[in-house]
Amino acid sequence: MQSDDDSQTLSRRILTLSLHLNPIPRPLSDPEPHLQMLTCAKVAKLDVDPAVLSPFIRGKHRDIQEKVLDYFNSRPELQTPLEISKDAHRELSMRQLLGLVREAGVRPFRYVVDDPSKYFAILEAVGCVDMSLGIKMGVQYSLWGGSVLNLGTKKHRDKYFDGIDNLDYPGCFAMTELYHGSNVQCLQTVATFDPITDEFVIDTPTDGAIKWWIGNAAVHGKFATVFARLLLPTYDSKGVSDMGVHAFIVPIRDMETHKTLPGIEIHDCGQKIGLNGVDNGALRFRSVRIPRDNLLNRFGDVSRDGKYTSSLPTVNKRFAATLGELVGGRVGLAYSSVSVLKVAATIAIRYSLLRQQFGPPNQPEVSILDYQSQQHKLMPMLASTYAFHFATAYLVEKYSEMKKSHDEALVGDVHALSAGLKAYVTAYTAKSLSTCRESCGGHGYAAVNRFGSLRNDHDIFQTFEGDNTVLLQQVAGDLLKQYQQKFQGGTFAVTWNYLKVSMNKYLSQPNPVTARWEGEEHLRNPQFQLDAFRYRTSRLLQSVAVRLRKHSKNLGNFGAWNRCLNHLLTLAESHIESVILAKFIESVESCSDPSSKAALKLVCDLYALDRIWNDIGTYRNVDYVAPNKAKAIQKLTTYLSFQVRNIARELVDAFDLPDHVTRAPIAMQSAYSEYTQFVGFD
Amino acid sequence: MQSDDDSQTLSRRILTLSLHLNPIPRPLSDPEPHLQMLTCAKVAKLDVDPAVLSPFIRGKHRDIQEKVLDYFNSRPELQTPLEISKDAHRELSMRQLLGLVREAGVRPFRYVVDDPSKYFAILEAVGCVDMSLGIKMGVQYSLWGGSVLNLGTKKHRDKYFDGIDNLDYPGCFAMTELYHGSNVQCLQTVATFDPITDEFVIDTPTDGAIKWWIGNAAVHGKFATVFARLLLPTYDSKGVSDMGVHAFIVPIRDMETHKTLPGIEIHDCGQKIGLNGVDNGALRFRSVRIPRDNLLNRFGDVSRDGKYTSSLPTVNKRFAATLGELVGGRVGLAYSSVSVLKVAATIAIRYSLLRQQFGPPNQPEVSILDYQSQQHKLMPMLASTYAFHFATAYLVEKYSEMKKSHDEALVGDVHALSAGLKAYVTAYTAKSLSTCRESCGGHGYAAVNRFGSLRNDHDIFQTFEGDNTVLLQQVAGDLLKQYQQKFQGGTFAVTWNYLKVSMNKYLSQPNPVTARWEGEEHLRNPQFQLDAFRYRTSRLLQSVAVRLRKHSKNLGNFGAWNRCLNHLLTLAESHIESVILAKFIESVESCSDPSSKAALKLVCDLYALDRIWNDIGTYRNVDYVAPNKAKAIQKLTTYLSFQVRNIARELVDAFDLPDHVTRAPIAMQSAYSEYTQFVGFD
Repeated sequence: MQSDDDSQTLSRRILTLSLHLNPIPRPLSDPEPHLQMLTCAKVAKLDVDPAVLSPFIRGKHRDIQEKVLDYFNSRPELQTPLEISKDAHRELSMRQLLGLVREAGVRPFRYVVDDPSKYFAILEAVGCVDMSLGIKMGVQYSLWGGSVLNLGTKKHRDKYFDGIDNLDYPGCFAMTELYHGSNVQCLQTVATFDPITDEFVIDTPTDGAIKWWIGNAAVHGKFATVFARLLLPTYDSKGVSDMGVHAFIVPIRDMETHKTLPGIEIHDCGQKIGLNGVDNGALRFRSVRIPRDNLLNRFGDVSRDGKYTSSLPTVNKRFAATLGELVGGRVGLAYSSVSVLKVAATIAIRYSLLRQQFGPPNQPEVSILDYQSQQHKLMPMLASTYAFHFATAYLVEKYSEMKKSHDEALVGDVHALSAGLKAYVTAYTAKSLSTCRESCGGHGYAAVNRFGSLRNDHDIFQTFEGDNTVLLQQVAGDLLKQYQQKFQGGTFAVTWNYLKVSMNKYLSQPNPVTARWEGEEHLRNPQFQLDAFRYRTSRLLQSVAVRLRKHSKNLGNFGAWNRCLNHLLTLAESHIESVILAKFIESVESCSDPSSKAALKLVCDLYALDRIWNDIGTYRNVDYVAPNKAKAIQKLTTYLSFQVRNIARELVDAFDLPDHVTRAPIAMQSAYSEYTQFVGFD
Repeated sequence: MQSDDDSQTLSRRILTLSLHLNPIPRPLSDPEPHLQMLTCAKVAKLDVDPAVLSPFIRGKHRDIQEKVLDYFNSRPELQTPLEISKDAHRELSMRQLLGLVREAGVRPFRYVVDDPSKYFAILEAVGCVDMSLGIKMGVQYSLWGGSVLNLGTKKHRDKYFDGIDNLDYPGCFAMTELYHGSNVQCLQTVATFDPITDEFVIDTPTDGAIKWWIGNAAVHGKFATVFARLLLPTYDSKGVSDMGVHAFIVPIRDMETHKTLPGIEIHDCGQKIGLNGVDNGALRFRSVRIPRDNLLNRFGDVSRDGKYTSSLPTVNKRFAATLGELVGGRVGLAYSSVSVLKVAATIAIRYSLLRQQFGPPNQPEVSILDYQSQQHKLMPMLASTYAFHFATAYLVEKYSEMKKSHDEALVGDVHALSAGLKAYVTAYTAKSLSTCRESCGGHGYAAVNRFGSLRNDHDIFQTFEGDNTVLLQQVAGDLLKQYQQKFQGGTFAVTWNYLKVSMNKYLSQPNPVTARWEGEEHLRNPQFQLDAFRYRTSRLLQSVAVRLRKHSKNLGNFGAWNRCLNHLLTLAESHIESVILAKFIESVESCSDPSSKAALKLVCDLYALDRIWNDIGTYRNVDYVAPNKAKAIQKLTTYLSFQVRNIARELVDAFDLPDHVTRAPIAMQSAYSEYTQFVGFD
């Protein structure tokens, strides 16, 4: 306890502490402050009309999205409250889905295969209502329904389509096991054919093979598509032959009583970080018998006498074909992740425009978005949101084309691109949700202002439908395969076609003259930006190929791959960034309204230069960029953030998200009064 | 819908898709894999005994921490369930606190001033039980209690000490308002002296002045320390004179009935992202009268006839003195944040050792911690945890010394260091909690495995007790002040003393010879590491001082500060990193056990080189590091991560966190069976 008279210590302390009041030390030079920094804001501002820009940035299929949103607006009892127990949330999600399908008449299942872009649009709208509902819908139609459509044959479609569509048959997609998530080829559940009864017998041989995280299983599912190793009797000393992982339709609950069927044990996986409206369950099977017809037999079939037939020669190829049909989930996640990012960025930016704190002496406080630090947090994020919008819209378009045309080149491209974009975009969004919360301070921590539930619900996007670290390795593996083919005279797939052009160009030493160019015109030239991104990718690809070859001699392929793993992940990210930038530049070019185009160009430049600056070490290390140029890039990035800040309101308005989608009081026009009313003041 | 006979497309697609099975392409070179990468793990492993290392890394005051943990272990009904409603959680937190104080006989209030390190030890243990309880305890004892002790005089201590101590007087700290969090000098609540009744009249003049986020207010508080502008009648045309913000004890609920007192309106701030056991409320005052004695009058007093007296000359200095007493909260947050990081890192690393996924062909799957990517995610984090442990232990020690000695140099140092460490450590921990979740995949998403609640509860550490962005500016401001004083013949405070030595040394051009040194011995030399950190800080300090001087001519001080804001924040972080590294190196030096010392040295090297590599662009831009050296740093960092992985189990064991503290099933020895049992399987 301090005595009250230690005034000398105190006065010394006070000097030190005066910084607590206002962190900006006053007596550096003349006492009269000017506000050029703030006022020039108005001078430099681009003239952009959100209403004109909006059609360019908002999604297609607005009509069905509005139908979804209008329906839930008209049913307050179907809106998810801020606080809800796990069990109540699960029931609500099911009621929401039933309402959507049976009352609003929106039938997502009909678009899963025939019009994916419409399906994803519904998914986006539904995810805005409650992400649990979005995931529950995805489990029902894309995973359970999708497995029946894509892995089954006509007999399955005929039998199950209507029930899946109208929700008489809620179902699950039982792939993941306790021990195996990423390495699904090692699943241990077995399905043994019994030729006497013409049935398969499903078994969980060990607890590690318990099906885990199965959506729709804990409460609502009547069926599950179960992935299990198909075992066929061989009638010799071997006993059975393992045909690899196949998919089977297994009824799990009684159609009338809803009781769990004999031999099946189901437990609730319990509380999750988010998405508690989704009833993830764990399933253990003991000698559960299903008719032979329940094998989803598109890629492999078993005859009455236990003979196996398939158009595909090996276990690996059959399983690859099976998994390949599930790529739609990744497309949906990448697309939905951008939609989450739009909502969060809109809330954070609108509040940062409204919120004022500190200011020059004797003048009003300034908007926190006028601080360079806040611009640094939010403006490159806004630029990335635009970039990802165009990239994922392109992905959805290509995926839809692929589903229609089955064009070979497209298939490979869409598969690798969906893996890469899903991994890259969801990781970026996850980080940004935290940044948004932090940038909104204490009020960002109120549940009603959304960042918590957005982050908690979105978090798992980085893991499910393929762990991001695994997916990026697929991208790197695909690049390497194409790189090897190139040297055997092959060609690159559409998305990586640039590598064909650029490898030779880029693998020579950087030009010492252009490495010093630092003019704004040069730095904002899309060709410089694309060259820089592609140079990096080409270098990384070439160097990792050399390293892999070297290490594989001593470590084997697995060891060599692991020794180069960080390098490979950087390569994959670099490639995805190249693709994103290329799409963004194309989209700017295609914009016909001059004001909108100027705004998009600004945002695109910020995206490109911010990414280059973030990886400046790499560029400096190979002297692609000289020190003066590095400094110029940093300076211009800061300046572009400032310029984007000046049209930030218009840029988020162009997302065209109504208040009933953003919902956060702090993002509304009358933010503070919405907020005080929410808490209970008159 | 695809037909079943598109087999050509299919086989092409399957080739592309085979990457889905195992991302590692096989046919790069010889088919026989070797596992040197994995087996050399055993060869290079250091021999370290957690039992010997542990006393060096675990906290002081283990006895009282064990008393706390044992108490809650013996009271299952006081343990927080995974799912609990906001209101129930608030009641439970209060019951937990009452149990701690009244039943277990732990009396934190007695240590707040006299033995802070013991207080923080209790806070750490209590935070491990439930972070809501930790924060509720902090509100009661450090904020409400601390304000009475530090801002009041003997009459207040005599009247309130026992009631605060034994929880008869639960109280609040009502500083933040709806419009003002960081800029507390602009608070708008007023306390007008009424000389007729000898009372102050507390008023909320506008809704922007509603006290917001006030812990203990929504449900339990009987009193609040209310920060308000003191208005004194002047008996002239001015009417009142504003003496600046002062603190007042205001009873808010009836001692008997617990009803809210007249003139006071309290609402619950509602659901938060985390910490829902803390009952944050919003308070509006309408002519609430309190006796004159309720002014906490250590730094300023009002006489019976309305005259103001103070030992401090200005409003600013009085307010600075008031705020200065609250620095203990920041020390506690920095310290608790490290404790959260220890728990999360332990869970993530133990699970990563246990979890196996993929592997070389025909061999068992490998631990995911054997993947370079997983080491990259978790090993520098483990190194940072050690680094922060030593830095915050040092801070607590210095803070305790300061509370005892009131040494002038210490006061300044502790204030800036607590601001810097609180900002730096909480930001790092927040990011790491997300990384931990991601690195544990789907099982990391189960609420029972802790990452969700740790993240949601910890999140606000970045904002309360001083927003991190504001605190870092205080550090930068302090550095600049000392820099200016140096050029006027002054000295640097203890923690930044290195700048005195280094400024001259570092402001010359980097040595082109040492810039190329790349040997492991050189890179692992603490002197090289410290020099690199300090060089960066010195450069940043000198260059930002020049820039500020330049810009202030045109933009004024406020505009210039804002124009350099990103630069200033980088400076502050760089300085804090220098301090952390210096403390870490000292701690390694002081370790007497050779094996433990070797382990700590390894971890310290990883911390240092990882930080340098993360900012390699800066070093490259000034040619402090040549390209060959940059490459060597990256390579060595990866190798050190691999080496640390080999003693990762021992390093987390040394934290000595029992299972009832980590609690996550996936972190236990029998992880999977704990986990299946938790879900409901036998």
